[in-house]
Amino acid sequence: MPPVQNARGTRDLLPAAMHARLAVIGTVREVFARYGFEPLETPAFERIETLMGKYGDEGEKLVFRILERGEGGREGKADLALRYDLTVPLARVIAQNPALPMPFKRYQIQPVWRADRPQKGRFREFYQCDADIVGVNSRVADAECLAVVHDALSRLGFPAFQIKLNHRKLLSAIVAAAGAAEFEGSVLTAIDKLDKVAWEAAFAPLAENGPGEVALTRLRAILSQPHDLEAVAAAVGDGAQAPAEELRAVLAHAAALGAKNVVFDATLARGLGYYTGPVFEAVITDGGVGSVAGGGRYDGLVGMFSGRSVPAVGVSLGLERLLVVMEERGMLVTGGTRTRALVTRFSADLDPQALGLAAELRAAGLDVETWLGEPGALGKQFKYADSRGVPFAIVLGPDEAAAGLVALKDLKTGEQRRMTRGELVEALRG
Amino acid sequence: MPPVQNARGTRDLLPAAMHARLAVIGTVREVFARYGFEPLETPAFERIETLMGKYGDEGEKLVFRILERGEGGREGKADLALRYDLTVPLARVIAQNPALPMPFKRYQIQPVWRADRPQKGRFREFYQCDADIVGVNSRVADAECLAVVHDALSRLGFPAFQIKLNHRKLLSAIVAAAGAAEFEGSVLTAIDKLDKVAWEAAFAPLAENGPGEVALTRLRAILSQPHDLEAVAAAVGDGAQAPAEELRAVLAHAAALGAKNVVFDATLARGLGYYTGPVFEAVITDGGVGSVAGGGRYDGLVGMFSGRSVPAVGVSLGLERLLVVMEERGMLVTGGTRTRALVTRFSADLDPQALGLAAELRAAGLDVETWLGEPGALGKQFKYADSRGVPFAIVLGPDEAAAGLVALKDLKTGEQRRMTRGELVEALRG
Repeated sequence: MPPVQNARGTRDLLPAAMHARLAVIGTVREVFARYGFEPLETPAFERIETLMGKYGDEGEKLVFRILERGEGGREGKADLALRYDLTVPLARVIAQNPALPMPFKRYQIQPVWRADRPQKGRFREFYQCDADIVGVNSRVADAECLAVVHDALSRLGFPAFQIKLNHRKLLSAIVAAAGAAEFEGSVLTAIDKLDKVAWEAAFAPLAENGPGEVALTRLRAILSQPHDLEAVAAAVGDGAQAPAEELRAVLAHAAALGAKNVVFDATLARGLGYYTGPVFEAVITDGGVGSVAGGGRYDGLVGMFSGRSVPAVGVSLGLERLLVVMEERGMLVTGGTRTRALVTRFSADLDPQALGLAAELRAAGLDVETWLGEPGALGKQFKYADSRGVPFAIVLGPDEAAAGLVALKDLKTGEQRRMTRGELVEALRG
Repeated sequence: MPPVQNARGTRDLLPAAMHARLAVIGTVREVFARYGFEPLETPAFERIETLMGKYGDEGEKLVFRILERGEGGREGKADLALRYDLTVPLARVIAQNPALPMPFKRYQIQPVWRADRPQKGRFREFYQCDADIVGVNSRVADAECLAVVHDALSRLGFPAFQIKLNHRKLLSAIVAAAGAAEFEGSVLTAIDKLDKVAWEAAFAPLAENGPGEVALTRLRAILSQPHDLEAVAAAVGDGAQAPAEELRAVLAHAAALGAKNVVFDATLARGLGYYTGPVFEAVITDGGVGSVAGGGRYDGLVGMFSGRSVPAVGVSLGLERLLVVMEERGMLVTGGTRTRALVTRFSADLDPQALGLAAELRAAGLDVETWLGEPGALGKQFKYADSRGVPFAIVLGPDEAAAGLVALKDLKTGEQRRMTRGELVEALRG
């Protein structure tokens, strides 16, 4: 028999991992719903022409393509491809549903697939967790995305995080004011590195073919107070006024919405080309955790299929990264089960009473499991429950049955005590 | 610009559909958890050799195959395939995780993909919703599957349903007792039709090449009381004793677990070959709805990758079918949103108060949306909220702000009244 394996770069989510994931997804879903974002799901695969030409040459290589059924497939033709992100499907949905009321606020929590080289913690199937506001160009909408990130990270239990905010057009104005407009792409790439490396290291790649020393000195002067919006705007001059005014509005609205840990950061670049307005990124500030959420305004992308410009702003929570960090920090509910108790089976003739007790507890809203091996041999049953992480076992033997009682055993302490069924429900709820 | 379409046989799940689906999945998940089933998810695709040879020639044609990345893909080679069901992945997980404590009770709610001819209500991507108990051969386990179906259909709100129960080995004994053993396959296919057509129509295909009139007359006599287990067992004789005894135990355990609408049905065949013990199927009894759930014991399948026999029993809920039926019957929560209120924006200078109010309501656990168009023009804001199905709008104008009050407008009745923020929270919770 050949060895059995899951596909390369994929993993099974066994119960312990699933409990943590369902809890985190549930929290994020609640936060999205708090703001009026509505759930959306799109199919796992799209027509291949829907995805091709959207992700650049490098991205395109990572798209999983599906063979045609029948003749075409035998000739190696592909007509479908697995979802690579959740943004292109959103753009398709918007184009196909012109009657959707705008703004359309949707969230989407689904896996995407990329044929990336698998690495520790990087998989070929992973969940994305996006919320976007489509159809309005509003600073309140931008601020809501920041507030959503704030609420999500707070409710997940992170005590210390910051949401960095910048503006794509302010970045352009900064680069232009320094006299480096024709090198914008490479300059922004360098600026984006400033949170990790020193100025010299970040700009070293530009020594050969870059804007030259005069422009870089001007740039460094403008960015000398990267968290002071007014100082940066003053240093840049006219070109900064419009984006700075937008950022002031986003900051004010975000504060009103309760997201008070938003900081302006002139060195936040967050990708190139894609964004058209405010951009942001959330970082956990205690410990060397990188970005766990990000987003911004991108007014060109959602209209790609309809040929019109559709304003859009969105946030993407790094679900897989959050799960890894929360696991490392012990922030996830541990124990692999939500089952509260194992209803043991003392003997076959008492099965009707044991099963009836299980049904009664379930009707009271408790999650209980029934022993499914042979009845008797309680030690084995306790051991099984403990190995499953189930905290309690319930015994209904002939003595208990005669007295109209049940015995509850705490599998951690070993303590066992008799009680009525009503007391049992209370004890298990505790 | 070419027309934009989703892939053939797939659909987008827009918010209204998603709310219904999330509610139904939530209920089913709760029921599974009540019995100690644990969540599991497996990757969307498997190595192609994992899936091939498992579904027969007809099934194999429906498997979506994924091109290799790089050179092999250019030559049309496929190395991966999309999940066709949730049972083969379960069998792989069991083989790959020999340390899983047994019984392993898992549920799995994920889409599967089949390149079937798309039809009304039949899609190429659809959710399966399976719960299986692996590793024990127990009548209590079989009964739990019936109880899970009972609880799920009850909690989803179906007032009238029946769970039909039979036994694969009793069926074989029936056919053998009639003297038709060598035609078992085609006889079972005919028996399985008896819930839809008359005896003559069901057995017409066997006129040419079948067990002959004597055997068929004997068969009809045995099946003359299809819901009376004792009568059928007596008519069959010795061969029926073991499976009949198992069915008596399943019926008794199911009743103890509270599943009281289980009926023996000697004509339930439910597929061929796959099952090895008790089989069952749930039907909604008011109206012409077919099967909405089914399952049974299949002791040969889960061990397919490990080469050992692993007992297993499982239930599959027809999620897509349930959603269609519930939609038709108005059993689903209507209204496309869970958003309770739109916080309108009266003017830009009152934005901080409006956004602060929204934040306050969210902190109180209420789902509220903020108007994201230009502030002012309340009529337009009310209209938008109403078009979204949001029941209330909240107005915070200069008068309300001065009085420390807010106005709540019921968008159905048009009634508007002023209240304190505390009263507002209560009114929205109502």
